[in-house]
Amino acid sequence: MGWGVVEITGGQLRLIETGALTTPAGMPQPERLLQLYNGLCAIIERLRPDTAAVEELFFGKNVNTALTVGQARGVALLALAQAGIPVHEYKPLAVKQAVAGYGGADKRQMQEMVRLTLGLTTTPRPDDAADALAIAICHAYTAPNLQRFGLSS
Amino acid sequence: MGWGVVEITGGQLRLIETGALTTPAGMPQPERLLQLYNGLCAIIERLRPDTAAVEELFFGKNVNTALTVGQARGVALLALAQAGIPVHEYKPLAVKQAVAGYGGADKRQMQEMVRLTLGLTTTPRPDDAADALAIAICHAYTAPNLQRFGLSS
Repeated sequence: MGWGVVEITGGQLRLIETGALTTPAGMPQPERLLQLYNGLCAIIERLRPDTAAVEELFFGKNVNTALTVGQARGVALLALAQAGIPVHEYKPLAVKQAVAGYGGADKRQMQEMVRLTLGLTTTPRPDDAADALAIAICHAYTAPNLQRFGLSS
Repeated sequence: MGWGVVEITGGQLRLIETGALTTPAGMPQPERLLQLYNGLCAIIERLRPDTAAVEELFFGKNVNTALTVGQARGVALLALAQAGIPVHEYKPLAVKQAVAGYGGADKRQMQEMVRLTLGLTTTPRPDDAADALAIAICHAYTAPNLQRFGLSS
């Protein structure tokens, strides 16, 4: 699960920190979810975002993926709710429009816009981290406040 | 989300408690998940099951349902993992075979078998509670121990 925290001051966006939480593929689901939850709680506790955003998810026909991603997402939403952080949802199209200016932007264009928007020398890695930052940027543009927090998975 | 706790002593199954956790439909998802999590943690803390079982879920083509159920399931698995309770998964067919003796049992037959197995005068309500007890009974028959815990959603 990718995550990223950005700060907006005077209309200027700045990267605070980004990354991706991963768990061993062979680990039983409850332990993976616990590890994800603990990792997320530690990030929330350390960086104390004012607000959070997640992407509305669509899954074509892959129902198993929807269940697995839903489980991870549930744990993330729980951690945010426990911390009293309001969570907003954005459709992928809205994220593309906010970050790249048009809804047809592809993955590489989005990553490049995230890099430019945050004034970074390289694209954030892994891809999930860049995706999360795109959501955070979208949220910062859409509902300005002090600090932002984006999640993707 | 239905839940049920049964105890097995000397091969005899006994109902400890059952019920269903519900949240208001209009409540935002993070708050609903938090309420579900708190309710489940309270039940786990109070009844301290030795082991838990959930049903493996299949969703036909309804991807949105899979995502929503996945979120609730993720929070349930997290609560169990935090309590150090091992979680087992059973396919719906295995639950039917264990409780009713054949995989083609319908909902009403399953509820009646749950009632008879636990020596109850009436079928547990709501349906989710009866479903959870069926999983708990399946788990008790499959891997005997002191006390059981079943979840369904």
